[in-house]
Amino acid sequence: MPSVTIQQMPKTAEQKRELVSRITDAMVDVYKAPAETVHVWFQEVTAEDYAAGGVVLADKLAKK
Amino acid sequence: MPSVTIQQMPKTAEQKRELVSRITDAMVDVYKAPAETVHVWFQEVTAEDYAAGGVVLADKLAKK
Amino acid sequence: MPSVTIQQMPKTAEQKRELVSRITDAMVDVYKAPAETVHVWFQEVTAEDYAAGGVVLADKLAKK
Amino acid sequence: MPSVTIQQMPKTAEQKRELVSRITDAMVDVYKAPAETVHVWFQEVTAEDYAAGGVVLADKLAKK
Amino acid sequence: MPSVTIQQMPKTAEQKRELVSRITDAMVDVYKAPAETVHVWFQEVTAEDYAAGGVVLADKLAKK
Amino acid sequence: MPSVTIQQMPKTAEQKRELVSRITDAMVDVYKAPAETVHVWFQEVTAEDYAAGGVVLADKLAKK
Repeated sequence: MPSVTIQQMPKTAEQKRELVSRITDAMVDVYKAPAETVHVWFQEVTAEDYAAGGVVLADKLAKK
Repeated sequence: MPSVTIQQMPKTAEQKRELVSRITDAMVDVYKAPAETVHVWFQEVTAEDYAAGGVVLADKLAKK
Repeated sequence: MPSVTIQQMPKTAEQKRELVSRITDAMVDVYKAPAETVHVWFQEVTAEDYAAGGVVLADKLAKK
Repeated sequence: MPSVTIQQMPKTAEQKRELVSRITDAMVDVYKAPAETVHVWFQEVTAEDYAAGGVVLADKLAKK
Repeated sequence: MPSVTIQQMPKTAEQKRELVSRITDAMVDVYKAPAETVHVWFQEVTAEDYAAGGVVLADKLAKK
Repeated sequence: MPSVTIQQMPKTAEQKRELVSRITDAMVDVYKAPAETVHVWFQEVTAEDYAAGGVVLADKLAKK
């Protein structure tokens, strides 16, 4: 039942595989939730589509 | 007013057209909501970006 | 797998029961998704927490 | 801390840059939130993935 | 059409009224969106239901 | 930057504290994200506001 939505920048398939495993284990341990009931969704966006501090990430990165 | 966000794997335009019609009809019938106030958003992800039971869908499908 | 999140004003348990049934049937018919894979979440807010046209719903209702 | 997610049709980088600035300023002014704590996420979809009034936007546009 | 969801701690009705006005004006100015098409949802949570840096906000506040 | 939203049934403060710690550690290990950039939001709903398999959880529990 717990549904986990992660808004993030693009990551590799390997990173997402490992994160899914770690998050699912945490849910099983802490919530005693059966693993098959834990759903994880990655909502990836580009640097143009995320901002903090009033500045779009793509602009921050362009200044580096 | 009701805003419906559907996280899913990619579907065809025809499937989404029909689902929108069915969901909007249900809102009109059950909530007496005017059809034009019902908003539907499809948030489609790839098989790399969804997991259940601790396994990324892309990996599950690769084993089939 | 499809996860449906519905942002809305509070509705009765009976209305939500019926809407869940209609939406799940639509997913089964249109997406050929097994019913048990269809998840529906209601995110209910008060009239103070929704706005359209620059006006909070609670203020619109107060003027009626 | 406030996290703002905007579901929308695609906009230009310049439009998103300006909207981020306006929204962050509003949060700083109204909530007295430090600018760096204001996060903005754009969830852009195509006209096939949004509907209102029971009609997918792509179909509405195709009739124009 | 743009749907804005704001995850935040509880704010006053007056603060939300003003923020809705500022955000809607920004959408009208920057996106040329008609005001009535701009939807704003506040998803308020308590300090027990938000965390950053691995620490729940309620615990951070309790230490102050 | 990663923002994690967890839709779930109500859990105890202790459970959420532990889950936040486990998820943040996973993000730091796997994504090399600084801990303070990892945001976690719990969106808790009642058993009337979640359904799977076409049945509202509250009704499923009532039959037990």
